[in-house]
Amino acid sequence: MDLPTVRDRFTALRDALPGVGIFYAVKANPTPEVVELLAQQGCRFDVASPNEIDLCLDRGARPETISYSNPIKKARDIAYAYERGVRLFVSDSEHDVRTVAEHAPGARVMLRILVAANGSTYPFGKKFGCTPEMATDLLRLAAELGLVPLGVAFHAGSQQLDPNGWDAAIADAALITAKLRAEGVELTTVNLGGGLPAGYREQPRPVADYAAAITASLRRHFGDAAPEVMIEPGRAIVAEAGLIRSEVVLVAKKSYADEHRWVFLDIGRYGGLAETEGEAIAYPLRTDKDGGPVGPVVIAGPTCDADDVLYQSTHYELPLDLRAGDHVDLIGTGAYTSSYSSVAFNGFPPLATYCVR
Amino acid sequence: MDLPTVRDRFTALRDALPGVGIFYAVKANPTPEVVELLAQQGCRFDVASPNEIDLCLDRGARPETISYSNPIKKARDIAYAYERGVRLFVSDSEHDVRTVAEHAPGARVMLRILVAANGSTYPFGKKFGCTPEMATDLLRLAAELGLVPLGVAFHAGSQQLDPNGWDAAIADAALITAKLRAEGVELTTVNLGGGLPAGYREQPRPVADYAAAITASLRRHFGDAAPEVMIEPGRAIVAEAGLIRSEVVLVAKKSYADEHRWVFLDIGRYGGLAETEGEAIAYPLRTDKDGGPVGPVVIAGPTCDADDVLYQSTHYELPLDLRAGDHVDLIGTGAYTSSYSSVAFNGFPPLATYCVR
Repeated sequence: MDLPTVRDRFTALRDALPGVGIFYAVKANPTPEVVELLAQQGCRFDVASPNEIDLCLDRGARPETISYSNPIKKARDIAYAYERGVRLFVSDSEHDVRTVAEHAPGARVMLRILVAANGSTYPFGKKFGCTPEMATDLLRLAAELGLVPLGVAFHAGSQQLDPNGWDAAIADAALITAKLRAEGVELTTVNLGGGLPAGYREQPRPVADYAAAITASLRRHFGDAAPEVMIEPGRAIVAEAGLIRSEVVLVAKKSYADEHRWVFLDIGRYGGLAETEGEAIAYPLRTDKDGGPVGPVVIAGPTCDADDVLYQSTHYELPLDLRAGDHVDLIGTGAYTSSYSSVAFNGFPPLATYCVR
Repeated sequence: MDLPTVRDRFTALRDALPGVGIFYAVKANPTPEVVELLAQQGCRFDVASPNEIDLCLDRGARPETISYSNPIKKARDIAYAYERGVRLFVSDSEHDVRTVAEHAPGARVMLRILVAANGSTYPFGKKFGCTPEMATDLLRLAAELGLVPLGVAFHAGSQQLDPNGWDAAIADAALITAKLRAEGVELTTVNLGGGLPAGYREQPRPVADYAAAITASLRRHFGDAAPEVMIEPGRAIVAEAGLIRSEVVLVAKKSYADEHRWVFLDIGRYGGLAETEGEAIAYPLRTDKDGGPVGPVVIAGPTCDADDVLYQSTHYELPLDLRAGDHVDLIGTGAYTSSYSSVAFNGFPPLATYCVR
């Protein structure tokens, strides 16, 4: 992990979105040095579990900068967060709102709504969020239970490449906000969730384009009643800071007629490259032998698992003289890699992280 | 992990397949107590990495009972295995055969062939094995390089439910064996790989049916020249010995019109249930509230990851009065669970294993 790159990405986002509260999605990369650096820069934190709360507090974050944004949480985990000073929670169900009210009395709560996620590499499906109608009722309920109903949250889908990908959900949030205002319930904030993209083989547009589209959407739907805005980027801050150095274990053909070689690396889907599932994320590659003639390859991991194939449909070419023992560097691997590693699948150890300052 | 069940499954297999060398696929469950028990019972071991070799030797296995069956291995890992006394390797490429010859001189080597895997829940695709033609050449090469060309290996696909699922590959192995015998290269052994199924929601046929079909295939294709036989079961030995106790984190609906409830457990795809990817394996469930009325559910894990949904297409019903804090036990979870756990995704700790004697 290149820490200066993390800092640059954070400051670029902050400058592009002035006044917006940036909550780093810790799950993207929970390396302690990354969290510490971001805390020093004034970043806030989106956490998913008590361990992530502890990590942030241990590395210098103040509890009031933490949002417990996982709508799926145990009562005792809410109580633990409250005990450690966390006062902001995201919810999407009646049971969770009631549990927050019981174990985090007086806390601020946001209701997450279901949204369509067109344009996203990883659309979020229906696991998180509820309908706007239900969210409206639950914000009312939160107020009745003595919580502060802060606003609407959503997630436009991870690696959202379309600058207008946030627009429909912002419209929904504005409608809910206006409806509740008419009843005397004042929501102050909108939480835009994650989704800001990172550069892989495909480069997204400049961050300014996303900022401009989001700002225009907020203006269009909220008008003069501009809300406070939160955003929860993960990969946009850390992905490009990461590089994984792998070693070629084997280069082989399966038959004499094979047109492509199989290149087996010493890292695969279970060693940290979980986001190659479905070949969703295509990392740029760099090798010791770059510059000479290349040919098509299938790229696979080292385990005895047939699913541990990284790129089979996605076209990659690698040097013809690539051999066992050569290095292949995977670029842009700072997000959703090390923490996804399996503990010991096939006896291979988890990915280790080294920070460059 | 219920160790008596592990012992029972192993002895049932041994009794059903007399004379067959049973090599437990350590990757299925590397719990030290499981390995130790199996070593005491006379089981042998299929390993994928140096760490698995160390594990087996530390728990009482003798090196001559170990097969390094991963065709994808680094030169230094082969050298390490050799240094620790391992003398049996599975290969599927010219480079690997040459590397074994260099770093494990005189070792026995098997060549893995590509096979169709009809009837398997997890067909193996093309990651492992080479064409029979290439395998024949590589067995010849092994002999030339001073290795002992032991025979043909294959994998009929994991959770292979069809008792005849091994037949086509046994036929290929017999053809290669006959062809090389005519040239004076005597292969003594056939390695049937993994694939023996375990019971999940769907129960496979009795183990005797698989044993009978395999025995008949060997007889049919090898005739009187019966080879030594190896088999590498993983889940068939350990799956049914495992039980994961989870806790319900949340039961919720996403809209007022929802016909099913979402049940969120405190374990999901990244906490050990990786085999629910594509909903391939459907575990039986047991709850504190069984016996009363039930209704349809979607079952999901606790992380902020939209892919962390266990069963959405597969029909499950759970008690209508199931609540946060109740237990849901996942049955048959002794294989491909704990070692697949992520180290810390979303800050959730890996699955812990407890052994019952």
